Amino acid sequence: MRPIVTLLTDFGTADTYVAQMKGQILSICPDATLVDVTHQVPPQDILTGALLLAQSACCFPAGTVHLVVVDPGVGTGRRMIAVEADCRRPNSEAWQAQRFVLPDNGLISGIQRQHRIARIVELSNSQFWAQSISHTFHGRDVMGPVAAHWASGAKIEQFGEAISTCVTLDWPEPIVRGNVVEGQILTVDHYGNAVSNIPPGMLVSAHGGRHLSYRVSIGGRTLDLPWVETYGHRRNGESVLLQGSHGLMEIAEVAGHAARRHRIQTGMACSITPALEPVTMG
Amino acid sequence: MRPIVTLLTDFGTADTYVAQMKGQILSICPDATLVDVTHQVPPQDILTGALLLAQSACCFPAGTVHLVVVDPGVGTGRRMIAVEADCRRPNSEAWQAQRFVLPDNGLISGIQRQHRIARIVELSNSQFWAQSISHTFHGRDVMGPVAAHWASGAKIEQFGEAISTCVTLDWPEPIVRGNVVEGQILTVDHYGNAVSNIPPGMLVSAHGGRHLSYRVSIGGRTLDLPWVETYGHRRNGESVLLQGSHGLMEIAEVAGHAARRHRIQTGMACSITPALEPVTMG
Amino acid sequence: MRPIVTLLTDFGTADTYVAQMKGQILSICPDATLVDVTHQVPPQDILTGALLLAQSACCFPAGTVHLVVVDPGVGTGRRMIAVEADCRRPNSEAWQAQRFVLPDNGLISGIQRQHRIARIVELSNSQFWAQSISHTFHGRDVMGPVAAHWASGAKIEQFGEAISTCVTLDWPEPIVRGNVVEGQILTVDHYGNAVSNIPPGMLVSAHGGRHLSYRVSIGGRTLDLPWVETYGHRRNGESVLLQGSHGLMEIAEVAGHAARRHRIQTGMACSITPALEPVTMG
Repeated sequence: MRPIVTLLTDFGTADTYVAQMKGQILSICPDATLVDVTHQVPPQDILTGALLLAQSACCFPAGTVHLVVVDPGVGTGRRMIAVEADCRRPNSEAWQAQRFVLPDNGLISGIQRQHRIARIVELSNSQFWAQSISHTFHGRDVMGPVAAHWASGAKIEQFGEAISTCVTLDWPEPIVRGNVVEGQILTVDHYGNAVSNIPPGMLVSAHGGRHLSYRVSIGGRTLDLPWVETYGHRRNGESVLLQGSHGLMEIAEVAGHAARRHRIQTGMACSITPALEPVTMG
Repeated sequence: MRPIVTLLTDFGTADTYVAQMKGQILSICPDATLVDVTHQVPPQDILTGALLLAQSACCFPAGTVHLVVVDPGVGTGRRMIAVEADCRRPNSEAWQAQRFVLPDNGLISGIQRQHRIARIVELSNSQFWAQSISHTFHGRDVMGPVAAHWASGAKIEQFGEAISTCVTLDWPEPIVRGNVVEGQILTVDHYGNAVSNIPPGMLVSAHGGRHLSYRVSIGGRTLDLPWVETYGHRRNGESVLLQGSHGLMEIAEVAGHAARRHRIQTGMACSITPALEPVTMG
Repeated sequence: MRPIVTLLTDFGTADTYVAQMKGQILSICPDATLVDVTHQVPPQDILTGALLLAQSACCFPAGTVHLVVVDPGVGTGRRMIAVEADCRRPNSEAWQAQRFVLPDNGLISGIQRQHRIARIVELSNSQFWAQSISHTFHGRDVMGPVAAHWASGAKIEQFGEAISTCVTLDWPEPIVRGNVVEGQILTVDHYGNAVSNIPPGMLVSAHGGRHLSYRVSIGGRTLDLPWVETYGHRRNGESVLLQGSHGLMEIAEVAGHAARRHRIQTGMACSITPALEPVTMG
C-alpha cells in the first residue's frame, strides 16, 4: 500500500507554496499519495485549521500522515511536533492510528479533544529536514520533509525527544442553562450552512426529547426552525435546523444560503430552545 | 494499472467534504489515483454538473470510475445509481467503457445523450456502503464507498438490481428556423468565452456553407463577429466566433473576457445568422 | 519510482480543461503522479507563469516533467517545445535534470535565467499527439500527450528537431544606482506579501552591510520598515521588510495584508535605501 500524506494549510492555491512543499515531499517519498484537504484556511486562523483537521483526518486509512501548516509563529521559538493518536473512525467503533506533523500552536486541539493522543515528539533532529532552512517556510523546509520521512518508514522517535504536553486552544464548548442550549457557529460552509458546536443529543436531553421545532437566537435575530432529517424534506427557501454530516446541528436554507439570508458568521453565539408554537412535521 | 476515480461535485474546496469523501475512498481502495474534475459546480446545479461530466469523462482511460455528486435530494427518496456506458473518445473513432456513480437526478443526461448507456443499477446493497449513513452526505457514506469498491474490482451487479431507465433532464438542443440557428449559452468559462450548444456543422448546413462573418443576437444585443480558427488570428480586444475545444461555437474576445464585455450569462438564448456585410478574413 | 508530471496553467479550476488534460495524460501514462502547481495564473500572463515555474520546478525530484500551458498564441505559428535543463535544487549545491513541455513564448525564461538549459526540441512529430488536434487547446491535444509520453519513457529527440534558441522575456532585473536599489514587485502572494525581485545580498552590498531599517518607495508612498528575520518578531499590524522563502526581499504586514494596506500591486517599481532614522531591532 502506498503511503498517504494529507495537506491542510492556509497557503491558498494561487501561489506555489503548496507545490514547493509537495515537491519536497515527493523528493523524499516519491511513492506518496498526496491528498489536499484544503488550502483555504483563513490566513493564520489556527482554530479553523484545528476544526477542519478534526473533521477530516479520521476518514483516512490507518497510518495516514497529516501535514498541517497554519503557522503564524514560523521562525520564532514555537515548537514543531509529530503526534501519534488513536482515532475513532466516524460512525464506527473502530480505532485507528493517525499521524500528524504540525506546529505546536493548538492545531492538534480538535484531535486531542475527541481522540486519544498516544505520543508527541518535538521536531529537533535536523537530519530529517531540508539542507538549509528558511525563516519563513518551515512547511517546506522542516515539517514537509519530516512528514515525508515518516510516510517512508522513519519512526517517530527518530524525529526528536518525546514531550508530554502541547499547546491547547480554548475549545468552544456548548453548555446547557436550564431550558437553553448555548453554543456557537464553528463554520459556515460552501452551501451557506451554519454549523454549530451543538450535538443533537444535547438538545434532546436538555429538552426532554426531540421537538418538532426550535427557536434559535443568533446575531440579534430569532428564528423558528423545524428540525428536519434532510434538506429535501422542506420546500426551497425554507430555513431548517438539522443534524449535518459532521454530527452537529446546522442552520440551513433549502436550496439557498442560510448564512447570507440570516447574516450568520463564524464565531457567533447561538442559543436554542424548543419553539413556543410547534411546527407541523414535513 | 492503478484504478482511476474522478470526482465532480458542487462541494467547493474550502470545506472538508471533498477530503472526507477521498478518505473514505482510499480506505477502501488505497491504490486509487484520484482526479478532481472540479468541485465548483454551482450549488445544486444539476444541468451544469451533467454538462461538465459530458465534457470531461471520455478523456479518461477505459474503466475509469466517475463519482459525481450534485445531490439536492440527498436523504430523500431519490435513487442512487451505478451506470456503465460505452463512450466515444473525443476526436476519435474508439469506443471505451466508462463507469459512473451518481444520484439518479439527471446528472447522467449529457453522457446518455452522446454515448451508449450499457447498464444501470440502483444502489441498494448496503454491504458496499459505510457502516452508518448520514441523512445529508451520501457522497461520503454511499456513493464514494461504492465507487471505491467498483474501482477495487467489485462488479456492478453486486451493488443492486438492474433498472431500465433513469431520470433525464430536458437537454438544451439547438434548432434551425429557416436562416436562423437558435441555441443557448451552456457555460461561460474561466476566460469569459461563452460556449453555446451549437455545433459548427449546424451553421454550415443551415447557411449553405461557412461564411466569413455572422450576426449573433444575444441578451438584447446584436454582435457582428468573424468566424476565426483561433484567438491569435485577431487583434487583442476583438470579439470573435469560433469552434472551441468542446467542438461547439463560442463567443470570445481576444485577450479579453467576452461574457463581461457583452453581458452574456449561462442559459441565455442566442441566435445566429450570416452577417449582412461580410468581414474580411484576418 | 512513478513518473511525476506537474501542471501549471491559466485554466482556472471551475471548468473541465484541467481534467481533460489529465485524462489525456493518464490515458498515455496511467501510472503518473499528477501534481497541480496552480491553475490560477492570470489569463494569458506569461511572465507570471514563468515566475511561478521558476519558483516551484526545482523543488521536485530529478526527471519530473513540468507541463506549463499559458498559451495566448494557441493555434497560430508559435512553436511548442520540450526543454531539458540542469537545475540547482533550492538551498543546495545539487544539480538535477528537470524536463519542461510548454509553448515557446517565454514561459521558460525564469528557468533559463537561473539554471542551465541543456536541450530544446521543437514539437513536430505528431505521432506523439492526440489523433485529431483542435485549434484552441494544444495543452490537451499536443503538449499534454507529449508530456505523458516523456514521463512514460520516450526520449526528447523523438518529439522533433533540436533547436538552439527559444523566445526569452525581458526579465525584470533589479539595479543599483548609488545608494538606491531599484527593483519591482514580482508577485503579491495569498497573504498579501509583496515579493520584490531584490535579493538580500544586493541590499547588503549596495549599503555596505545590513541596516536595521530601510526606506522603501513604492506606488508614490514612502514606508520606513525594519528588516526582520520572520513575521513573529514584530507585533500584529506592523509592516516589515524580510527575506521571504523565495530568497527575495518582501514587504509584509504581521498578521495582515501588506499589499492591501499599502496599495501595492504586481509590477510596481520599488526603490530601497537605508532609513534615515534607525529603528530599534525587535
